[in-house]
Amino acid sequence: MNQKAKGTNAERELVHRFWGKGWPCVRVAGSGCSRYPSPDLLAGNRERMVAIECKATKENSKYFPKEEIRLLREFSSQIGAEPWIGIKFGREDWFFISPDDLKDTGECFMASLDIVKQKGLITDELIGIFKENKTDI
Amino acid sequence: MNQKAKGTNAERELVHRFWGKGWPCVRVAGSGCSRYPSPDLLAGNRERMVAIECKATKENSKYFPKEEIRLLREFSSQIGAEPWIGIKFGREDWFFISPDDLKDTGECFMASLDIVKQKGLITDELIGIFKENKTDI
Repeated sequence: MNQKAKGTNAERELVHRFWGKGWPCVRVAGSGCSRYPSPDLLAGNRERMVAIECKATKENSKYFPKEEIRLLREFSSQIGAEPWIGIKFGREDWFFISPDDLKDTGECFMASLDIVKQKGLITDELIGIFKENKTDI
Repeated sequence: MNQKAKGTNAERELVHRFWGKGWPCVRVAGSGCSRYPSPDLLAGNRERMVAIECKATKENSKYFPKEEIRLLREFSSQIGAEPWIGIKFGREDWFFISPDDLKDTGECFMASLDIVKQKGLITDELIGIFKENKTDI
């Protein structure tokens, strides 16, 4: 399976998960190759909307070009959604991390398995009750 | 050009238009063939979100299966968006009509050029100031 198909499968897995929890979720057509900045997924309920950039990797860390994160923030701010990055490391479950909690390496932003376990949210936390003070660790 | 490509082009035209007016807009991947109900477009600003089913036709009227409209309403209600139908009749400009203003023919819902000219909104009205009392005509 090529990289694009893997990415699409990862996105679909999250789409099913959000719908299963009562949150409508759509995949954005042409995300990442359109002339406009757009996330991979949009999900929401009547009160909140989340814009999600999805990554699945076999590695223990994932690097993001700063421009990708800037565009996620910009899109989210304009449409009125919260910006999130959904990451699946190997056989771990999905974690969702705020752009604020990525590590700034100078050239890039980075998320590691350690970072998302410390500062990230699991799906139920993302759409439900947030862990208090978790981002202060 | 086949029917699907025509539909995609019509959607892209609206995507450009919304972005041009400062409203982020995305095309939904797999709308109409996914297992989940989803509109063709989602657009919004910080205050409002619209879910749009797009149709372009050479005819002077367009029929919608009732199920299609029910699903548009259901999706919109769950995600917290306003349901709209965007229609382009021939060389006319796009009109946006509320599902409430479609004509019930018994088996289907229907929008004609006359109906959208009476009860529909143009793009600027959809995203900006609504024509007062227009839906009471």
